[in-house]
This record gives sequence, C-alpha cells and structure tokens, in this order.
Amino acid sequence: MALMQNVGLPYSEDLYNYSDQKKKDFFGINPSQSVSSCAPRINGCSSRRSLKVSANIKGYKKVETINGKKVNGIHVEGMPFLGQRNTDLIKDSSIEEPNHEYLLGRFVEDRFVYRQSFVIRSYEIGPDKTATMETLMNLLQETALNHVASSGVGGNGFGATREMSLRKLIWVVTRIHVQVDKYSSWGDVVEIDTWVDAAGKNGMRRDWIIRDYNTHKIITRATSTWVIMNRETRRLCKIPDEVKREVQPFYLNRAAIAAEDIDIEKIEKVTDEFAEKIRTGLAPRWSDMDANQHVNNVKYIGWILEVCHAKY
Amino acid sequence: MALMQNVGLPYSEDLYNYSDQKKKDFFGINPSQSVSSCAPRINGCSSRRSLKVSANIKGYKKVETINGKKVNGIHVEGMPFLGQRNTDLIKDSSIEEPNHEYLLGRFVEDRFVYRQSFVIRSYEIGPDKTATMETLMNLLQETALNHVASSGVGGNGFGATREMSLRKLIWVVTRIHVQVDKYSSWGDVVEIDTWVDAAGKNGMRRDWIIRDYNTHKIITRATSTWVIMNRETRRLCKIPDEVKREVQPFYLNRAAIAAEDIDIEKIEKVTDEFAEKIRTGLAPRWSDMDANQHVNNVKYIGWILEVCHAKY
Repeated sequence: MALMQNVGLPYSEDLYNYSDQKKKDFFGINPSQSVSSCAPRINGCSSRRSLKVSANIKGYKKVETINGKKVNGIHVEGMPFLGQRNTDLIKDSSIEEPNHEYLLGRFVEDRFVYRQSFVIRSYEIGPDKTATMETLMNLLQETALNHVASSGVGGNGFGATREMSLRKLIWVVTRIHVQVDKYSSWGDVVEIDTWVDAAGKNGMRRDWIIRDYNTHKIITRATSTWVIMNRETRRLCKIPDEVKREVQPFYLNRAAIAAEDIDIEKIEKVTDEFAEKIRTGLAPRWSDMDANQHVNNVKYIGWILEVCHAKY
Repeated sequence: MALMQNVGLPYSEDLYNYSDQKKKDFFGINPSQSVSSCAPRINGCSSRRSLKVSANIKGYKKVETINGKKVNGIHVEGMPFLGQRNTDLIKDSSIEEPNHEYLLGRFVEDRFVYRQSFVIRSYEIGPDKTATMETLMNLLQETALNHVASSGVGGNGFGATREMSLRKLIWVVTRIHVQVDKYSSWGDVVEIDTWVDAAGKNGMRRDWIIRDYNTHKIITRATSTWVIMNRETRRLCKIPDEVKREVQPFYLNRAAIAAEDIDIEKIEKVTDEFAEKIRTGLAPRWSDMDANQHVNNVKYIGWILEVCHAKY
C-alpha cells in the first residue's frame, strides 16, 4: 500500500544537528528547590508570532530509590487504539471500509519520525480565521501521544512509557518553543512530524515540524524539553535506566529549531507593578481540565494569550 | 475505490418518519418580538445525559424585500477545500500519498446523508476520560458545515448557501436536542451521519446520528432547528424561494429522534431567586470567539454545563 510507505524525505537541510545542545544538562532546572507547580510563563508577546514558554520548575531531588521501592506491579495496558493494531491494518490491503489509520499517524524514516496529518476543523480557527495557538499545541500534543502509543513502549496515561507507569512516573514539560511562520485555515491539511532526543542526562527533547500538506513547506517548528516527575510525590527524578532503554532507540539527532535560534534568556520575574496589569477574572473552568484532571500546558498558553490576543 | 462507496445501510428501523412534525410551523419562535440575541438556555441538567437547548429567539419579521434590495453581487466563492475537489479525488484511484478525503466526509444513501468519521483526540476528552459535550457538538457542527460545503450549494461563511450569501443571510439555531447513550473515549472512532429536512415553512431541521465505528451502534442522536437571519439587520426572515430551491433536493424525511421523544415544553424563565444560584465570574474569553467573531452555540453549551459538570 503506497499510502503507508516509509519515506526518507530530504528535509535535513531545513533541520539542525543537535549534538552540542545534547551536551548540556537539564535546561533551566534549578536542582536546589522544591516542586510547587508546572505552570508555564510566557516570555512576552512577540510580534514575530514566536512563542517561548518555560515552566517554573523547582525541586530536582533524587527519588529514584523511592520510585524503585514503589514499583508495585500496576497493571500496564496498551493504549486503547494504536500500537499493534495500527501495524496490523497496514498489512491488510483488502479492507472494504474506511481505513482509520489514515486518521492516525505512521512511522517514517526508519521509525525515527512519527508523522500524522490533520485537517484544520471549523472550530479550531479563531476570529482571524486561522488555527489558534491552542489548536497548534493540541495537535502537537496529539501527535506526540500517538507517537508514544504507537511505539510499542507506551504505558498507561498520557505519553508515559510502560516502565514509567510501573513507577508512577509522568512526563512534565519544562520548556516549549513554538515558531510559527504561517497559520493554517479551515480545511487546510497539515502534516506533523515529531521525534525525540536526549536533553542532558535526565531530560528528553521532543521536536516537531508542521508542514502545509499542499505546498510541503514547513510552516511551524517547535521544540520542547521534558523531565520525569513522580505523580504521587510530585518530585522530579532522574530517568531510570529502564526508561532510558525504552526511549533511547527512538532518539534522533536532529533539531527542528537551530540551537542558536533558541532564546535561552531567563524570563523576568513578575513584579508587583507588572502584576497590576495582569488580566483578572480569568478563572479556570471545569472544561479546562484534561483527562489527567489537571490543567495542562496548552490551556495555560491559551490563558496567557488572552492578554495579548491582538498580536496572535 | 471501495472506501468511497455509497452504502444504503439498513438503519431505518432506528430512525423515524418525520412527516407529522414537518407540518408544524417554526418551532418555538414568537413572531411578534424583536431580535436581541441567540443565546441558548439549557433545560436543566438531566441525569439522563440528554441535552435540550432552545435559543431565545425573538423578532420574526418579514425582511425578504429588504434582503431583495440588498442583493449586491457579493463575490461568492466555494469553500476552501471541499466541493468539487472532493469529487475529483474520488475519481482518482492512482493517488500515491495519503488521501485526505478520508479525513473529510462523503455522501452516502443517494447523497441524502453526509457521513464523516472522526477519531476522538486526547484533548477532546474531559476529566472523566470521555468526549465532552462540547466535543460532540463541535463534531456535529464540523460535519454539518462539511455537508453544506460538499453539497455544491455552499456560499461564503459557515453553512450558508450561495443564495444566502448573496443576500447576507445566515443560519441561526433555535433549538438543539442531543441525546447521548455513550460517550466515546480517546482513540475511539465515531461515524457521524447528518441530513436536513424542512421544519415548518421557514425553518430547516438538521439531524445527526453518531455511531461507534467498531460496534456500529448508535451512541448519540441529535436534532436541531435552524432559521434564517439577515446578518446586517439581525432580523429573522423567511427562507427565500431561491434558497429553498437549493436545499430542498437534500431534504430527507427521517428523524434521528422520534417526535414523541422530543421535549417541547417551554424553558422556564430565570427568576431572581434562581439567578442567585448562577455561577458568576464566567466571562467570555477571546478564545471563545469563533471565525464569525462571535460566540457560537457550542460555547454557550460549554458555559452552561460549567454549572452542572458533575452530571456530565
């Protein structure tokens, strides 16, 4: 089936070798403080339409041994729809009904890159008739989660591996940088590629590129850094060796955004004066909660952008 | 291409003949008052998980002649992605790359029914890990809009026909009834059928059924009533004959919800006492605005459900 072919597309000239960046340790994580929350803060509202967000991560402590003790044989089941089933469908060329793997994604480039296409829906565009930043970030999230689920190492929950689920560990995002060149319109098809790489010793980097399906041009680039947290103690921990063994085979030394283009300047603390200008009355809604019963990074971005919508 | 076949599936036993209902005039519209807004009001929060909403429509006045004068040759172009292109793709069986019409929908049952499949995405489920009512209603909207856009009679904007666009007319929903038997989970594939019929002399009924793609069971039924409003004068008007000629060929005498199951009781007015209990601080956000730069019915439903989330 031609539709499912693995294509090594010559996009490498648009991307970057990340080996220098890999040598760095945890990005912007201060190991001396205690975890409070993972609420991100946006670095202003750039007219360049580039979004840089860092989580206010505190409290890197070694809890690996605690995690080790806590392994208690939780039942770890596969994701509800992907994994092997997707592969099975690929083999079956006699399907009479719509093949829903087209609605999902597939591995390309020797399984280093996961690719999924989306049609921008009517309710995913904003007043300017283009896809909102929340939409883009939701699609990035969806692609990332399907990547993990399809990889065969997915555990319970959102994006965790089996070995992570066994240890009650979850990924938390510490930094995300989204650079948009063009926002899509209703009905446009976008093709999202995602892959992962190491970020220091205890982080994982996840990159994405979004292409316009018709022009094949890259219209958005994004990079993010993730670390592991124990969902009960809410403390960050090192990546256990078992988890490293799960994810390392997928590591790809390629960067969606060149290291020199990544703004690593620290976000200024909110001062009393600036706080006065903050929009009030933006209370969380029940509908802001995700399946983990918490407000995820995408919603925070949406809230943040409420104060500077004119530029987005 | 088997995937695009028009299938007359034997679902009629689950559906209902609507001829009696058709004889009725405008549902719940009072022709003696003036238009103020189309804010819907929910009829309580039923534990049956059935949602009934009526718009507070006022001001049915004859403005057809006004509209007639206002026809001014606005440029009417096709929808950005559907219409003819979809048909072209159907004919081409030699496509080498993912066929994105699978991500869109297709006509079935002699073009009376429009069918589209969706995978429930990770960010479309709520804290209970099932698709939210807002998600369901967004998918209903998307299917309806794609139906119009694919029909060949689509004009500018959301769901308006060409003849409507020429006259600056838009559809407004006056009533929607959604009956959910089962909420889908992340990764579930749902298949939505939609069709239209007359509703009295000057309304259109749009029905939907949602099936679980794997079990083929109907998991949601929905029906809605739409009337036409001039988007400049904000007044309701009769359906112009030219518009009738566009939509009538698509009318299908079938009801997703039996007439006797439709609750037509009037929604009680909000009293001062009840108003005390209303949740405050729920201000519209910029992100609540849709491409028409207004808050559409789906967002209102979301807001309404904020006060009774425990049951949804």
